[in-house]
Amino acid sequence: MQEQTRLDAVFSALADPTRRAMLARLAEGEATVSELAEPFGLAQPTISKHLRVLEDAGLIQQGREAQRRPRTLVVGGPLEDVDAWLQPFREQWERRFDALDRFLEQNKKKTKRTKGDRR
Amino acid sequence: MQEQTRLDAVFSALADPTRRAMLARLAEGEATVSELAEPFGLAQPTISKHLRVLEDAGLIQQGREAQRRPRTLVVGGPLEDVDAWLQPFREQWERRFDALDRFLEQNKKKTKRTKGDRR
Repeated sequence: MQEQTRLDAVFSALADPTRRAMLARLAEGEATVSELAEPFGLAQPTISKHLRVLEDAGLIQQGREAQRRPRTLVVGGPLEDVDAWLQPFREQWERRFDALDRFLEQNKKKTKRTKGDRR
Repeated sequence: MQEQTRLDAVFSALADPTRRAMLARLAEGEATVSELAEPFGLAQPTISKHLRVLEDAGLIQQGREAQRRPRTLVVGGPLEDVDAWLQPFREQWERRFDALDRFLEQNKKKTKRTKGDRR
């Protein structure tokens, strides 16, 4: 159940466009709180709250540099859990697309044959 | 912004273990409300609320069969959006793992060479 609770926190943290944008920014490299706040024009307490949610979900961590305390993305970790959770669903839609491809391929052959017959 | 709002709803819908279990069940095939309710021992209104959240997020749909109204998983759709959102992060952890692999490979070679030298 521990793992379920962790996934709850991760999905919940991702259910906000500001937090997703912060993660995308951190995917490019570490950033300070003010660098993370800049694009959003949000008040400092709001930004701090978003950062805390991301941190509690294990998605980001705080650097040890006392003055700047830059935030970094935790590579892999919880997002890999999301990826793993998606896997059975991904397999399903890939199978569906493969079946569609085969269907279209068959249809193309049939159309060609029909055209050939007409000549 | 429409797409952001949709992703918000999807991530929010996924932030609950009962709803994730329902999706996993539906990945195996359509199911009626009572079939979906069975493993959880939850009251009918709670189940209906969960199903509504999944439906509003575009993750499931209701069959047209009047009596049974089975639910089906929407193949692809919002979960593909989640998959697409994950892509830049996935690339990052894959690069990290590749780098680790190369490091371990290099290290193995070095260890072998050192052992060879000793002989």
